[in-house]
Amino acid sequence: MTKSVYSFSDDVPDEQLKPLLGGKGQGLNVMTRLGIPVPPGFTLSTEVCNYFREHDGGYPEGAKQEVIEALAKVEATLGRRLGDPEAPLLVSVRSGARVSMPGMMDTILNLGLNAQTVEGLARMSGDRRFAFDAYRRFLQMYGDVVLEVPHSRFEQALSALKVAEGHATLPDYALSAEALERLAATYQGIIEEVTGAPCPTDAREQLWGAIGAVFGSWDNPRAIRYRRMQEISDAWGTACTVQAMVFGNQGDTSGSGVAFTRNPSTGERALYGEYLPNAQGEDVVAGTRTPLALTAASAPPGQEGTSLERAMPAVFREFVSLTERLETHFRDMQDIEFTIENGQVFILQTRTGKRTAHSAVTVAVALVDEGVITPAEALLRVDASSLDQLLHAQLPTPEELAKRGIHALAVGLPASPGAATGSIVFHADDAERLAKVGTKVILVRRETSPEDIHGMQAAEGILTATGGMTSHAAVVARGLGKCCVAGVGALSVDYAKAIVTVRQSDGATRVLKEGDAMTLDGSHGAVYAGALEVSAATTLPELDRLMLWADEHRKLGIRANADTPEGARQARALGAQGIGLCRTEHMFFADDRLEAVRCMVLARSAEERRRWLDKIEPMQEGDFLQIFEAMQGLPVTVRLLDWPLHEFIPKLAEEHEAVALALGDDASAVRQRAEAMHELNPMLGHRGVRVGLTVPGIYRAQARAVLTAACRLAERGIEVHPEIMIPVVGIAGEVEQMRAVVDAAAAEVFEEQGRKVDYLVGTMIELPRACVRAGEIAKHAQFFSFGTNDLTQTTFGISRDDSGTFLPAYVSELGLLEADPFARLDIDGVGALVAMAVERGRATRSDLKLGLCGEHGGEPRSIAFCAEIGLDYVSCSPPRLPVARLAAAQAAIRALSV
Amino acid sequence: MTKSVYSFSDDVPDEQLKPLLGGKGQGLNVMTRLGIPVPPGFTLSTEVCNYFREHDGGYPEGAKQEVIEALAKVEATLGRRLGDPEAPLLVSVRSGARVSMPGMMDTILNLGLNAQTVEGLARMSGDRRFAFDAYRRFLQMYGDVVLEVPHSRFEQALSALKVAEGHATLPDYALSAEALERLAATYQGIIEEVTGAPCPTDAREQLWGAIGAVFGSWDNPRAIRYRRMQEISDAWGTACTVQAMVFGNQGDTSGSGVAFTRNPSTGERALYGEYLPNAQGEDVVAGTRTPLALTAASAPPGQEGTSLERAMPAVFREFVSLTERLETHFRDMQDIEFTIENGQVFILQTRTGKRTAHSAVTVAVALVDEGVITPAEALLRVDASSLDQLLHAQLPTPEELAKRGIHALAVGLPASPGAATGSIVFHADDAERLAKVGTKVILVRRETSPEDIHGMQAAEGILTATGGMTSHAAVVARGLGKCCVAGVGALSVDYAKAIVTVRQSDGATRVLKEGDAMTLDGSHGAVYAGALEVSAATTLPELDRLMLWADEHRKLGIRANADTPEGARQARALGAQGIGLCRTEHMFFADDRLEAVRCMVLARSAEERRRWLDKIEPMQEGDFLQIFEAMQGLPVTVRLLDWPLHEFIPKLAEEHEAVALALGDDASAVRQRAEAMHELNPMLGHRGVRVGLTVPGIYRAQARAVLTAACRLAERGIEVHPEIMIPVVGIAGEVEQMRAVVDAAAAEVFEEQGRKVDYLVGTMIELPRACVRAGEIAKHAQFFSFGTNDLTQTTFGISRDDSGTFLPAYVSELGLLEADPFARLDIDGVGALVAMAVERGRATRSDLKLGLCGEHGGEPRSIAFCAEIGLDYVSCSPPRLPVARLAAAQAAIRALSV
Repeated sequence: MTKSVYSFSDDVPDEQLKPLLGGKGQGLNVMTRLGIPVPPGFTLSTEVCNYFREHDGGYPEGAKQEVIEALAKVEATLGRRLGDPEAPLLVSVRSGARVSMPGMMDTILNLGLNAQTVEGLARMSGDRRFAFDAYRRFLQMYGDVVLEVPHSRFEQALSALKVAEGHATLPDYALSAEALERLAATYQGIIEEVTGAPCPTDAREQLWGAIGAVFGSWDNPRAIRYRRMQEISDAWGTACTVQAMVFGNQGDTSGSGVAFTRNPSTGERALYGEYLPNAQGEDVVAGTRTPLALTAASAPPGQEGTSLERAMPAVFREFVSLTERLETHFRDMQDIEFTIENGQVFILQTRTGKRTAHSAVTVAVALVDEGVITPAEALLRVDASSLDQLLHAQLPTPEELAKRGIHALAVGLPASPGAATGSIVFHADDAERLAKVGTKVILVRRETSPEDIHGMQAAEGILTATGGMTSHAAVVARGLGKCCVAGVGALSVDYAKAIVTVRQSDGATRVLKEGDAMTLDGSHGAVYAGALEVSAATTLPELDRLMLWADEHRKLGIRANADTPEGARQARALGAQGIGLCRTEHMFFADDRLEAVRCMVLARSAEERRRWLDKIEPMQEGDFLQIFEAMQGLPVTVRLLDWPLHEFIPKLAEEHEAVALALGDDASAVRQRAEAMHELNPMLGHRGVRVGLTVPGIYRAQARAVLTAACRLAERGIEVHPEIMIPVVGIAGEVEQMRAVVDAAAAEVFEEQGRKVDYLVGTMIELPRACVRAGEIAKHAQFFSFGTNDLTQTTFGISRDDSGTFLPAYVSELGLLEADPFARLDIDGVGALVAMAVERGRATRSDLKLGLCGEHGGEPRSIAFCAEIGLDYVSCSPPRLPVARLAAAQAAIRALSV
Repeated sequence: MTKSVYSFSDDVPDEQLKPLLGGKGQGLNVMTRLGIPVPPGFTLSTEVCNYFREHDGGYPEGAKQEVIEALAKVEATLGRRLGDPEAPLLVSVRSGARVSMPGMMDTILNLGLNAQTVEGLARMSGDRRFAFDAYRRFLQMYGDVVLEVPHSRFEQALSALKVAEGHATLPDYALSAEALERLAATYQGIIEEVTGAPCPTDAREQLWGAIGAVFGSWDNPRAIRYRRMQEISDAWGTACTVQAMVFGNQGDTSGSGVAFTRNPSTGERALYGEYLPNAQGEDVVAGTRTPLALTAASAPPGQEGTSLERAMPAVFREFVSLTERLETHFRDMQDIEFTIENGQVFILQTRTGKRTAHSAVTVAVALVDEGVITPAEALLRVDASSLDQLLHAQLPTPEELAKRGIHALAVGLPASPGAATGSIVFHADDAERLAKVGTKVILVRRETSPEDIHGMQAAEGILTATGGMTSHAAVVARGLGKCCVAGVGALSVDYAKAIVTVRQSDGATRVLKEGDAMTLDGSHGAVYAGALEVSAATTLPELDRLMLWADEHRKLGIRANADTPEGARQARALGAQGIGLCRTEHMFFADDRLEAVRCMVLARSAEERRRWLDKIEPMQEGDFLQIFEAMQGLPVTVRLLDWPLHEFIPKLAEEHEAVALALGDDASAVRQRAEAMHELNPMLGHRGVRVGLTVPGIYRAQARAVLTAACRLAERGIEVHPEIMIPVVGIAGEVEQMRAVVDAAAAEVFEEQGRKVDYLVGTMIELPRACVRAGEIAKHAQFFSFGTNDLTQTTFGISRDDSGTFLPAYVSELGLLEADPFARLDIDGVGALVAMAVERGRATRSDLKLGLCGEHGGEPRSIAFCAEIGLDYVSCSPPRLPVARLAAAQAAIRALSV
């Protein structure tokens, strides 16, 4: 017969602790065995839970007796007994699975109270209000969780009581002992009315009811759904921990508090926290009394005496020593809840302390310097995605602002991190003009297009009414390192009136006009009216050290997406090992060449087109010269024209006229040709290699510009590694034919320049068909770069620009997706296609170079997946480079430890 | 040492004939061994070709000697010798691979001519012009193919000669013997100038040059590309056949002709064909003389005497007996080329005769009745896709019309077969109005939308400037059985001016206005100005018999796509075993409910929406009642709302006002909500299950309408099998959640109606992610129906509506795709995903019902693939049902014979 119940002090082999006792049981067992004072208790193992589930609520033979024995030990330790009217022992009964499932299962506190014991508690604590508050809370919790009385019945009774006591919005703590006593009686009545019987008064009966409810809650629908989402096995079951409750409100030598072993904001090595004398833990949290400092040093000037250090020096010394032992044992900053009951410190909980990115980096590096952990461990200690906090200007979180009464006007997608404040403008030209005279502006658009780039560059932040995480606005903003909130469905932008109307959740609308102040939180997707204070980005020497360790550990190469010389320089400074995606569309949009580009697109014949291409080619060559020079010695992947031709099409009459004049054509003919290029679904239209194949000359001119620039630098002794990438490939023959064009252009250029440079020709893999046919495509492609933005669009059949109307609901209320698949790679679907392409591509060409250049290249979980399937590199926007370097290192370290 | 050269009379085991001698060599060998008189000759085997390719143009030991011996046999048989100035033997040297590669490799005719033998030929034939014509043709062919003299040089010389002789457009046959003699001399000069040497005069040297060129042509780039497209092995090689040339122009007892053993238009069992006395085969083809009838019966009245039957009765009798032997041997109608040289009949070629669909059906059924072939063989004899010809009104082909001087105004996609003529209208309402008064109209649109359906129904044919094979216009037209030409890029439709402008290939434009006559050929995608004569669709009793055999043989179920009671009845009449796709969007567009639908979409709250849905539900119920009744006893798959909500959005101010009035809202607010629903890529937007999930109530109302209708029919004893299908699924949870909604609606309905009906809930599989995750999806879906239109769009990343600008070029000049993937399933890409989904789905649920309801369900090659991967059924538009039934039978028969 196996053991069913484990006292906290029982010896259990380390590897069995969590599976058997759950996370909570493990923590209490470890602390108890370390000699840390914790309120005594015991845990019913997960095996009991599984027996219970398989036997219709029954318990293994002997389990009930084991509980009685373990309980007796607790009673003996504390000198109180469960159900004893004189010295009642109260216990908590909590669930706790192998992995944390926060809020999914049930908990019951203050168990052991009834009409007699509540009086004993009142006497023992000397606080009748406290005793009846605990009692009514117990009745509500037990009624709800164990007896299945509708929650709302208790809420209604409480509301009615408040009305009777004075007014409806009375806070709970303002209710008197007498009122609470009456409430307890009302609750008893409700339970009897609904269930046909009173709440059990026998404490042991209460205990078994609570244990059964905890085990039963493993199979409640929200827990089942959570497990499915998190891929937690249904077979694990939950443990059930029964623990004595201790009370910090027993007088002046009692109290409760919370402490961090280091500063969770800055990482400074100093005890950090607060306490309340003669109070329960929930009083500290409730905020009705102002907590006091733990240390004299951290107390406000003049109030040093109230600090725990001065008020209870012996207790403080003991507590400090306990916190040090806990940190030493767990080898990380701890977040500790404690209660002092009549001068005795109890540790109720210790866990790894949550911290800001700043603190995470500082603590991790400090622990290495202190010899506690290795650099590899330090790398695992920092949440890669949290580095955004460090690298960008920040607002307080929406929750923090809400506490100060500042509420977001509207919420959209956190499209590009950081925060910014400025005056509203609606047009790129206005943004540029005002920025030149020093005005900080926020560019507000329905959506952005390539023609808005100069305005996005000039603005502090960008706000769009439509578009997803990888919309034009989002992609460009991240590339520029600008904060951006996209897809704010509640906005209506009226360019004609120069106003933006915000529909609020209550149906009201609010109108902001051009010039009004606005603040954006691109990290949370929040939009605020007015100018809020924004904290600047941090520079942290510890981060540089962490990055050096990251580079030592990671296997995955990290490149950046950049298409300007400045971008290239920034990328290099932030540690990029090359450019993984140099888009060429922006080059077409520069002021000095847009008209030539339009003439090229709208030319009447191949001959005419060729003449305009000849004008454009040397301009592009100049761009590449500078980018290649900035990336000297490193590879640069240049993507040939990807966007639909129609993006370059003029829409205004005056633009038609300008093109007509340049072409010697008439404006109505130009307009007609422009209109004929309109597409219903441009994302799935005439773009990428389809343009390359059907409008000959464009790819040739681009390849010539790339290779001519490379040759000219080579002449100056500057090493260049151009990689020419063909986008939107679905058919092997597309690559075969375009590669022939590139190779022919190369031969021409090398002849003209009298020298050769090495170059690669490869493809973007961004269509499901390309993944399926990767084996064929690899015959012609020297590298693959996964364009997972588009691959996500086509695999899901979801346009990034139009996803705002349903995708947020998929992630939140419907629970269909763990995360926005445009932000985090969908491993089960899109990832499976990527893995298929890797396998098939490498089977054809073992030295196929493999990278990823979608937005996912800067997202830690996606990067881990890329490392796992053996990609050579990922490429991300320059500001995400530290995130990517860290995530890649973590992936490598985790792979070693498997 | 293996044999290299085979005389036509050599015995070769049947199974080696084709691999060794190629298709052409096989035919000649078989005929010779049957005792059919063919001009003698021999074949160098494919093994010689492979040796030649591997040995840099060398020949296997002994091969040259074998050629000399085989040639000697030919010379002995005919009493002429190669290179003999007195009695010159001329030969043809032709390629011929295991499978036909038409026009891909080289051929040389009249080999053996030089300055001496041409005179001998002139004397022998008594026709100096003929001799020099043959000579100059030989020089050009040999110069081009063997000596690699640019083709254009000969063309230029010929043009110059014509100018010298009179005028530039002189036909070749008008050149005199003297002129041709001069031309031959000029050609000689060109050859010498380009190659530095004269054309070989030695006939054996000519022969080896020609054989080498034929073998070499196996590796010319166009042949390699063709083989890659057709998946023909490079290793097979070509055979090379050398055959004596015979001459039908030796006098009155000579002649040439072509014959079919049955009528290739009607299938009638009677010799069909024509001949020319004293003429060569090419004279019959050239059309410079009018050929004469073979039989007296088929000769024009009064000209019976000129028929072969009367003019050369003995020759005719022998010829008839030869044709009968050939048909008996090959067990099918033969297309025979023959030459009579001095009273002796030679069969130059026999092959299975090409025929119209009418003839194919008639001949196949007749051959069964004659006991020649089995019904299974008969089914394989008819090209399933050709049945379209029978089932629709037809124009002559564009080539036939061009011969009569009638040229297409423009060419687009053959979106829905058939032909129609009528007056141009630009608006659906006009089409309906005019059709009511008996005017036949062609509806011309930039593109069609669901609001145009009544006009499409009223029109004879539909023409659109944009859109692909599965655009709205194409899909709806096929469903209605209307002819449609889509995606005619050369059209600009100006609704305001009520004109359509056609840009012609020469840059000129032509304008047609409302009311002008126009003719469409939906089978070839051609558009004609004016009213051309259109032949009616055929009814053929033999087709009914063939269909019965098809149903006996096929394993695959055949359903129809239909969403009206008329459509359902038509489907049933044409043999559908159920409805595989009943779209519900059209039900929303009916006049009496469109406004209610718009109000539902634009409602301000869930409550308001519910009220409008309650109005719509009984209307839909009525639709389903009729459809289910028509399909009594058969399954009907109803697809819940698939289209983006925005399709239902009013665009005009008056429509906004109407909705605002109905909702009690103001028009500007309605307009704003309508505009907010605009999408950039609606195909990838808020549609299908995404609407079902985020706009609760719509799917519930639809499921209620389906199941209430089913219950009400069940009450009347009418058996119904509704299958409710959820579209645009990419995530298993989508199905899980919507199935719960459908099941809850079912429980409600069954309670209300006091009875239950069986129903299934399944999903459309139309996104790549659904294929990848099919195993998970099958946990919740009872059936899959592959929506291969959308799956093709997302797998390729190509919008069907926007593919017109590049996809035609992919199929034709670029050779990247064998066929439009929206017309024929892309087996390598989309098909691979379908097969993956089948495998994964069935692994989860072994009884998963599997169908396909994309446009590919009516395309024979796609149907064969569906049969191969084990689908249960395909579903197609009703007019395609005979095609689908036949194709399914063929797939089953072929599967047995493998």
